[in-house]
Amino acid sequence: MNVSERIAKLKDLMKSRNIDAFIVPSYDAHQSEYVADHWKCREWITGFTGSAGTAVITLDECGLWTDGRYFIQAENELKGSGVKLFKMREPGVPTFYEWIADVLPKNSNVGIDAKIFPLAVVNTMKDKFKAKNINIKDGDLIDQIWNDRPSMPMSVAYDHDVKYCGKSRIEKISELREKMKTIGANYNIISSLDDIAWLFNIRGNDIHCNPYVISYALISLNEAFLFIDNKKVDSDIKSKLKADEIVIKGYEEVADYIKSLPEDATICFDPNKTSYWLYSAIHKNVKKIKGINFTTKMKAIKNSVEIENLKKCQVNDGAQMVRFMKWLKQNVGKEKMTEISVDQKLESFRAQIDTFVTTSFDTIAAYQENGAMMHYKASEDKNSELKAEGFLLVDSGGQYYDGTTDITRTFALGALTDEQKRDFTYTLKGHINLAQAKFLYGCTGANLDILARRPLWEQGIDYKCGTGHGVGFFLGVHEGPQNISPRMINVPIEAGMVTTNEPGVYKEGKYGIRIENTLLAVKDMENEYGTFMKFETISLCPIDLDAVEVSLLSDSEKNWLNEYHKTVYDKLSPILNEEEKQWLKIATRAI
Amino acid sequence: MNVSERIAKLKDLMKSRNIDAFIVPSYDAHQSEYVADHWKCREWITGFTGSAGTAVITLDECGLWTDGRYFIQAENELKGSGVKLFKMREPGVPTFYEWIADVLPKNSNVGIDAKIFPLAVVNTMKDKFKAKNINIKDGDLIDQIWNDRPSMPMSVAYDHDVKYCGKSRIEKISELREKMKTIGANYNIISSLDDIAWLFNIRGNDIHCNPYVISYALISLNEAFLFIDNKKVDSDIKSKLKADEIVIKGYEEVADYIKSLPEDATICFDPNKTSYWLYSAIHKNVKKIKGINFTTKMKAIKNSVEIENLKKCQVNDGAQMVRFMKWLKQNVGKEKMTEISVDQKLESFRAQIDTFVTTSFDTIAAYQENGAMMHYKASEDKNSELKAEGFLLVDSGGQYYDGTTDITRTFALGALTDEQKRDFTYTLKGHINLAQAKFLYGCTGANLDILARRPLWEQGIDYKCGTGHGVGFFLGVHEGPQNISPRMINVPIEAGMVTTNEPGVYKEGKYGIRIENTLLAVKDMENEYGTFMKFETISLCPIDLDAVEVSLLSDSEKNWLNEYHKTVYDKLSPILNEEEKQWLKIATRAI
Repeated sequence: MNVSERIAKLKDLMKSRNIDAFIVPSYDAHQSEYVADHWKCREWITGFTGSAGTAVITLDECGLWTDGRYFIQAENELKGSGVKLFKMREPGVPTFYEWIADVLPKNSNVGIDAKIFPLAVVNTMKDKFKAKNINIKDGDLIDQIWNDRPSMPMSVAYDHDVKYCGKSRIEKISELREKMKTIGANYNIISSLDDIAWLFNIRGNDIHCNPYVISYALISLNEAFLFIDNKKVDSDIKSKLKADEIVIKGYEEVADYIKSLPEDATICFDPNKTSYWLYSAIHKNVKKIKGINFTTKMKAIKNSVEIENLKKCQVNDGAQMVRFMKWLKQNVGKEKMTEISVDQKLESFRAQIDTFVTTSFDTIAAYQENGAMMHYKASEDKNSELKAEGFLLVDSGGQYYDGTTDITRTFALGALTDEQKRDFTYTLKGHINLAQAKFLYGCTGANLDILARRPLWEQGIDYKCGTGHGVGFFLGVHEGPQNISPRMINVPIEAGMVTTNEPGVYKEGKYGIRIENTLLAVKDMENEYGTFMKFETISLCPIDLDAVEVSLLSDSEKNWLNEYHKTVYDKLSPILNEEEKQWLKIATRAI
Repeated sequence: MNVSERIAKLKDLMKSRNIDAFIVPSYDAHQSEYVADHWKCREWITGFTGSAGTAVITLDECGLWTDGRYFIQAENELKGSGVKLFKMREPGVPTFYEWIADVLPKNSNVGIDAKIFPLAVVNTMKDKFKAKNINIKDGDLIDQIWNDRPSMPMSVAYDHDVKYCGKSRIEKISELREKMKTIGANYNIISSLDDIAWLFNIRGNDIHCNPYVISYALISLNEAFLFIDNKKVDSDIKSKLKADEIVIKGYEEVADYIKSLPEDATICFDPNKTSYWLYSAIHKNVKKIKGINFTTKMKAIKNSVEIENLKKCQVNDGAQMVRFMKWLKQNVGKEKMTEISVDQKLESFRAQIDTFVTTSFDTIAAYQENGAMMHYKASEDKNSELKAEGFLLVDSGGQYYDGTTDITRTFALGALTDEQKRDFTYTLKGHINLAQAKFLYGCTGANLDILARRPLWEQGIDYKCGTGHGVGFFLGVHEGPQNISPRMINVPIEAGMVTTNEPGVYKEGKYGIRIENTLLAVKDMENEYGTFMKFETISLCPIDLDAVEVSLLSDSEKNWLNEYHKTVYDKLSPILNEEEKQWLKIATRAI
């Protein structure tokens, strides 16, 4: 079946069910950022492969909503499918629910799979649909027509050793219960896989690049339940969890169990991470407290063992980055290299680290104009050969037992134009400006973002994404609650949070530049004005000096770069061989 | 009656009315920032004269909540009164409603004057009080015991000429109606005096330093009502308003009129600016749309006539600032000067401008350690004599038919310590850093704030207030919706908005420094990345070069200062005499 045939089949089913519009989002049942193939319904129905997007099929039309990262890709992939692209957040473009409220007549029916729609989104839709009395009906229509739908992922859960994560699941659950008590909750439903993995110190391999196991959790003040398919828990993890008084129940039992909770219970949950289906299982008399999961903030603040491990992990990861960079810079133009082959080379370096599990996301190795696409991924159809000129942007990272890494370097493969060098240097100035920040406790990423962006804004250049995102500890490479972005997310940067610093320049048809390190927030000092914070840059790899226009840097910026490079050399050289050390010495020379 | 006697009398009345706690806020019936004497109930009951604060009287205790600007003043003024100070936003300090919910037993009664409490605050309280079933009862108990309470202000309204404000009331009302239609509202209740003054192009003298007339407004899609005491509208303004089809009704009629609106009406209003009393007058079946008043945003974006007038106004205001500065710097130490006498001198300079109406707030003229109190006001009891040394901080402004000004200069009256010069220069660096900002459209004050604060944060110094506030056009010297502050207020800076830039250093017991200019936001350029914005500094007065440590400034900062000073000289010299010009030439010399 091609996309048009799939849509036609869906429309037939919609008609028979009296559904006027069916929404196919990118969600899984756990509101994961990356979803297992089983849940790639939106990709299946539209052919658009980007990670974010929502399709709406009415009996007359099919629309796809996606954001600025994917406009070009979506246009290409939707060609000929009859699916209309809606560019999210562009002026005059309605949201998908505004569009539905506009095009459907009164008293229409909108179909969704309530198992995958978060409560918060359903509530927003209900609000928008009220005026026209448009109803929302639950039913997974895609499942009825997707014959070769991949089955649910069935990786086996394993224990994440306390020597890595620093805190036992007993301690974590006990701390969570203390937080539940502060708001008067005696139950906490957790659907999000990273929160569950963190809380129970379990990991798995259910989602590409994300070490999660599909499951739900319910914590009461004296019990803890993990709802997980029996095939995913072997005797080893079963006995470990049991020893810590965690009760294992079947994955499918979660809704019934929640239905059985006492009517005088008080349940807290995150409306953005809890499906409408699960929410609907809560008895109407039960008191519901909505808010961001406590575990989301708890896991964002890394403990001292995690920080120590992560720093070791960054040394290992950085050394392999150096070996890759040395190989790349020394051999480009001499041996055949493509975007895919350098990606494989880099992964082979990382795989040599003993704590390595997987890459933390699909490497972006993007040569020249491909770098202008922020989320480019080379494919067999499109795989540029590298020449000894211009920029290669490599954004990559690893999942290790002792941490998650995410680093971007843009390499000069040979001669650069003046414009390329200038843009690289303005990007670097932004990167340094944020890395150097000293700020009062209470600052959010929205307060800090302009530090990275300003040197580019002064040149009339912007990048259409945030400056940085939180990074998990052997968890998601993107994690909340903090970020660094102009958007008003009211979460202060706390000591122990790990966030990326990744300004960039993206010139369509020309090149892309991004310089990304990971920042650890630490306390700087306390005085009569309050507590001052600063960042420690923990990623370790030279920033390509061949691309720097030194005359554009201030003394303070040069000092930062020289000191950073000195740190890179001092920390990495002990695990490098003589030849690598000599190469690194030059790559990290003072300017 | 002293404060204790007043509180005792209130408690007697509370007992007889079965009220367990009575709340006395700083509000008037229009949620004004500055209130007429008639509404200074909180000052009367506690003796605390600061502009912001809330008193709560229970049968056992009396507490006063105020913010960081007033901690020192409140401590002094409350001494011996038995009133306990609660320092707002300090760690561990409850809000007044949290405190009430804590100390009162179940089923208690809390008394308020619903005429002055905004709906939003009452709703917050109701929420906090729910768990203990604490009820809120309406009744102005203070009025019963305050025998010599000042009467309502009765200034006469007058027309603000279109030649100043650029847009007729007919145009403004018609634009407002278009905005009402976009949300489906057919009525808009406006209680806030600045919104009413702007919308109807009327001004008055009901509130110290604020050119408002006490009134309510109701706009429907085809009618416009002004509820105002008959004594306040003479035949001139009556005929002008009538000609523009504005219906004048009695001030006291507003609630009854709102009660009479059809049940199928849709009314929009600002829950932070509409009293609970007025809200309660709306029939329960009427659809209510809550949001910030449209007029608040409309008036914040100055039109081209207002901008042209304001720039002229700034020239006049700046020239008088220069005459004041020249007099001050040339005569300090030679003739007797006090904080009060220089304030009077400055006002006498401003009063010579033909469009001058009043000062825009009480001048802060604060010598040395008094400058460390952000909202210091000299009094007969405390009025420092100026010596030819140290800092004099002067924060002042005028209300003119052609605009409102707000400017702070910190003058070196003679020798300064190295620390004073350094702190002045770091403040100046912050000021310049914000003034120079180039930013993408969409940026909020929360995104920009760090630019002004960063040079001080780098020195481990902070100022406990925002960096800037909106300024009205012959309206409030503080106006929303935008500001420049770390707080997450999601209002982008729009072209035409006027906002102050006022970083500072406040060292208790030593000195205060503030450098404040007014910024006009303008469009800079548009390209593929979006619309870039910048600021134009429109306040015109030399920044005291005697206080600048030039070695701490970067080339770019020196350039800004030299260019600003050149602008000051070029714009002001045409209206100065020879001697003044010569003095200004030196005061604005390039460094």
